[in-house]
Amino acid sequence: MGYLITLEGGEGSGKTSILKRLASALEQQGLSVVCTREPGGIEIAEQIRKVILDRDNVKMDARTEALLYAAARRQHLVEKVIPAIEAGKVVLCDRYIDSSLAYQGHARGLGIKEIYAVNKFAIDEYMPDLTLYFDVEPKIGLARIEKDAGREVNRLDVESLKFHEAVREGYQLLVGQYPDRIQVIDAGRDIETVFQHAFHTVTNFINPPRI
Amino acid sequence: MGYLITLEGGEGSGKTSILKRLASALEQQGLSVVCTREPGGIEIAEQIRKVILDRDNVKMDARTEALLYAAARRQHLVEKVIPAIEAGKVVLCDRYIDSSLAYQGHARGLGIKEIYAVNKFAIDEYMPDLTLYFDVEPKIGLARIEKDAGREVNRLDVESLKFHEAVREGYQLLVGQYPDRIQVIDAGRDIETVFQHAFHTVTNFINPPRI
Repeated sequence: MGYLITLEGGEGSGKTSILKRLASALEQQGLSVVCTREPGGIEIAEQIRKVILDRDNVKMDARTEALLYAAARRQHLVEKVIPAIEAGKVVLCDRYIDSSLAYQGHARGLGIKEIYAVNKFAIDEYMPDLTLYFDVEPKIGLARIEKDAGREVNRLDVESLKFHEAVREGYQLLVGQYPDRIQVIDAGRDIETVFQHAFHTVTNFINPPRI
Repeated sequence: MGYLITLEGGEGSGKTSILKRLASALEQQGLSVVCTREPGGIEIAEQIRKVILDRDNVKMDARTEALLYAAARRQHLVEKVIPAIEAGKVVLCDRYIDSSLAYQGHARGLGIKEIYAVNKFAIDEYMPDLTLYFDVEPKIGLARIEKDAGREVNRLDVESLKFHEAVREGYQLLVGQYPDRIQVIDAGRDIETVFQHAFHTVTNFINPPRI
């Protein structure tokens, strides 16, 4: 059996760039790595994501959105993540259950407990083995995004700063709730330092140092 | 406040035809009626339904399907059903939570309790006030559908007879669980008799006879 390692954080936390570097570094250590993000090229999950991120869907109810994320998560998990874990691979997943807990559960006020119940149905026993939470002040994160002209702006990016601050608060609550699973990485630092911290956290998890 | 009345049953139970006659008859009694079915012309819910019923989506996981039904249900409820109930109307809805409980919960083996939890998140306090369950043997129901050449065949119609028998068993379990809310209508009889039974059940519910 492999590992399911998830990368979490607000917009502009740098987790997506770090994920790529992390994959290369782990592969150089001889590990077999699968990089993915929901919907991960899974046709059904892509169709669902299209509905979620459509900027014309302004009437989207918060609970509808949460159920759609859970549906896309389920399909991606079944078609891509589980087969990889069963093949002994290290799966690095850009966002997973904690995104729903922080965004829908806390920031949209639906309740972390309620969103957990829906997502538990979606993921069953597949909670992440390890989660790296890239923590950055929303102001800094959003400024990074604005600079990155090549990045496509979707419905969530245009939310207010207040919303992104609530997302951060949600992640902080989760860190308190899952202190063993979720490791906090200060993502306000330069990218090299952030990467080294993330890399050592993962390698220590997979091959704990002998004491 | 109006009423939410749902019509349930297997394929070919005749509930859709009865719903139209029921609406006319109730309107003749001076009631304001809204006829609907999920996704009910709600753009977001229509998009979700398209994903569910796409015959190419053969890899659709049963839990993904259940979450998508719950998502479409939520949006239809928020945009169409709740405003109608709050306007004092009688909402007649062709399929609702019990369809998910019978189809996904029982027939697909996901568990009625598990599907109820997901749907409770979707519908919140909006359980039906009254449910008419049109009970018919799957063999008879499916034979009716085959005769109806104008009806579009979707991914669910092509399921096996065994599946439809499991759906019926699911409904029967729900009747046992909600004996006050769900009224059984024997839909194996001629349509006029079935309609009269349904009509009297609804009118007795809205205006109970004085004893």
